[in-house]
Amino acid sequence: MYYEKQKLSWSQRAAEEAETVASISCSGHGRAYIDGFVVDGKPICECYSCYGGTDCSLFPPNCPADVESVDPLFLEPFWMQKAASSAVVISGWHRMSYFWPNQSFISNELEKTIRKIHAIAKNAITDGKYIIFGVGSTQLLNAAIYALSMDNYPAAKVVAKIPYYSLYNSQTELFQTQHYEFEGDSSTLRNKSDFAGNVIEFVTSPKNPDGNLRSPILKGPNVKAIYDRAYYWPHYTAIPAPADEDLMIFSMSKLAGHAGTRFGWAIVKDVNVYTRMMVYIGLADMGIPKDAQLRALTLLKVVAEGDGKQLFHFAHQNLRDRWEKLSQIFSLSKSFSLQRIPTQYCTYLERARDPSPAYAWVKCKRYEDQNCSEVFKVAKIIGRPGSRFSARDRYVRLSLLKGQHDFDMLIRRVKQLVSQEHEARAESMSGFY
Amino acid sequence: MYYEKQKLSWSQRAAEEAETVASISCSGHGRAYIDGFVVDGKPICECYSCYGGTDCSLFPPNCPADVESVDPLFLEPFWMQKAASSAVVISGWHRMSYFWPNQSFISNELEKTIRKIHAIAKNAITDGKYIIFGVGSTQLLNAAIYALSMDNYPAAKVVAKIPYYSLYNSQTELFQTQHYEFEGDSSTLRNKSDFAGNVIEFVTSPKNPDGNLRSPILKGPNVKAIYDRAYYWPHYTAIPAPADEDLMIFSMSKLAGHAGTRFGWAIVKDVNVYTRMMVYIGLADMGIPKDAQLRALTLLKVVAEGDGKQLFHFAHQNLRDRWEKLSQIFSLSKSFSLQRIPTQYCTYLERARDPSPAYAWVKCKRYEDQNCSEVFKVAKIIGRPGSRFSARDRYVRLSLLKGQHDFDMLIRRVKQLVSQEHEARAESMSGFY
Repeated sequence: MYYEKQKLSWSQRAAEEAETVASISCSGHGRAYIDGFVVDGKPICECYSCYGGTDCSLFPPNCPADVESVDPLFLEPFWMQKAASSAVVISGWHRMSYFWPNQSFISNELEKTIRKIHAIAKNAITDGKYIIFGVGSTQLLNAAIYALSMDNYPAAKVVAKIPYYSLYNSQTELFQTQHYEFEGDSSTLRNKSDFAGNVIEFVTSPKNPDGNLRSPILKGPNVKAIYDRAYYWPHYTAIPAPADEDLMIFSMSKLAGHAGTRFGWAIVKDVNVYTRMMVYIGLADMGIPKDAQLRALTLLKVVAEGDGKQLFHFAHQNLRDRWEKLSQIFSLSKSFSLQRIPTQYCTYLERARDPSPAYAWVKCKRYEDQNCSEVFKVAKIIGRPGSRFSARDRYVRLSLLKGQHDFDMLIRRVKQLVSQEHEARAESMSGFY
Repeated sequence: MYYEKQKLSWSQRAAEEAETVASISCSGHGRAYIDGFVVDGKPICECYSCYGGTDCSLFPPNCPADVESVDPLFLEPFWMQKAASSAVVISGWHRMSYFWPNQSFISNELEKTIRKIHAIAKNAITDGKYIIFGVGSTQLLNAAIYALSMDNYPAAKVVAKIPYYSLYNSQTELFQTQHYEFEGDSSTLRNKSDFAGNVIEFVTSPKNPDGNLRSPILKGPNVKAIYDRAYYWPHYTAIPAPADEDLMIFSMSKLAGHAGTRFGWAIVKDVNVYTRMMVYIGLADMGIPKDAQLRALTLLKVVAEGDGKQLFHFAHQNLRDRWEKLSQIFSLSKSFSLQRIPTQYCTYLERARDPSPAYAWVKCKRYEDQNCSEVFKVAKIIGRPGSRFSARDRYVRLSLLKGQHDFDMLIRRVKQLVSQEHEARAESMSGFY
């Protein structure tokens, strides 16, 4: 510690404000924030989904479990436990310049901390590679396509194996450039050996939505891969070996839970790809907010503290318990099935490891349940339809990353759904005999 | 004030750290930051340009005045005066979600504060218009082109009047889309009435580099304008009337000086243009960092405090004094001339107002001085060459926005340059007679 216990001067007001707002009671069903909507000079409670009223004490009985979105709030309790070490004070004059002292858009200390965390998690080799920051991993996905395709005529074809994250498609098509276009499922190009142009494959491993580790579908001299490694952390998966690909993308939101900070990074082998990605970030945004970099640094220093295992332990236990609970209920069902995730040896834990995926990828098995998300909606569970992943609507994705209240609600609703199935079966059998 | 004087708990550590780091002495020629490069457990001094040594006490005698970049550090002293009100404490669990409570990417309170500040400055009409946030005004420039051009076949032509900000060109060409392309100077299209496609004109007013107010060059049913209003604040210009255009872009960096926060906003009349810009921001980045929005809110609340005139007063006085000093020196020169900026009535000040531009746009008048930035470089003044604005290199832009030490150095070097000119003239005349 390089600071000494002291009487505060200019930071006292902001610290008092932060603590006062944090102590606003929202009945345990919501939270007040310093930048929240102000009524009568005070920020109001922002209630968790379903809860309402000025103090979040109201709960409508028929409220659905909303597990459509991805907000990784299951990690919020970790950060509340780490309140002192994870807080940060930003002065009014903090880093007003466009640049860091090395004239780049990249914080040196943050880059160092990221390399350290990958070494702790044993999930990626960063030695001899460059690191680039982006506004979320989101921005880096496109920066990577740009960097890999700029010399291409005809336009490079961008593919991903179904089911895939819908942003790959919508973002790639947003810019409608002359250099690349979205082609759809990876396998559509597998047999087209006559396609002369370059191919860029998004390889999401672990996969969103199903949590399984994946390899590229396409290979060859004109195929380049962007490894979306957002979920390759001990939270979500066994780590069979550190990833060592040429272009890997990670995000703050899936590592630490701070989706709102919009901070991601790419680890890049080739200097030309690195340089082009930096040009992209520079021209699109002139670098990313230093406030977001400071926040990421503060939080990631906490992650790296001590033996650096606390966050991974917390996240893994939490998600493993959630998965166990959910799969136990679905195991009683004949109408719905969950994805299978094999038990795998994990070099981080140094043992075989049970599944703890970020999402349940549910299949509706009954012939008539073509639209699985509708079936769940009727049961008051809001999931993301299979078609959003370019898969069949016989599938639905349920997020297991949300806050505890959302997960508890999900469990309640899934129990009801499965017990209704049993009741219906019992009824139909009693009618049959 | 909705908080009470209290003993701090979890925020104490961060507050102590911030104050300890802020109190690190760098001989008055630099600054230490909490996210600075750490040596022996302490962040090191980051010295202002030219200064060196661990405590920034070294000053090499031949160091040039670097006024090439735009870092608006002239506003730093304002924020140091406002240390207590402009500090912010961010908890480890602050806004981890992707969304604000209204499920958007936009902070309500920040939007309200921005509207209030425009009303105070009398520089823009926001009533009945939408506000969008971006990663700096930088990102919004392209989001605006995207929104204005998506229906266009053939591709829209994007133009700007020379001299123009180089990013208009480089950013527009970065994406190489099928919907727009950069065409160059606005006047190239003035006489091409046969061009059937749409035209998008960047109208920078006040103009970067010369600080004068401008109107569009092109008019007609197929011409749309993006008003880059970054410099339309009482700091830099008279405000003859509030701007009321359909698409105006502003930035935190030019209003408050926080270039590093990468925060800008667009004010948009048409709901379809607004929606498309939001789609762009959503797909490119999934919104902008909440940490940057919180920082902007904290700072802009200080700007709006009291009568809301303190920042404008500080900035205007500072830049007017700088301009006076610089123009006085150049008035003694026959080799160099500055741009002319008329005295204009300002509705904000309610009186006629002397110039206080952000930049000096210097012309080298001697026939042989074709490369003006070279002439200045020899005189140890680093400016931005005219060609960077697609103008002739007979011009050079000198930033007046940097910190006081950089400005003082500029003045010293310009004095030397002009006195050398006098000496040379005296010599040549003595040789002649």
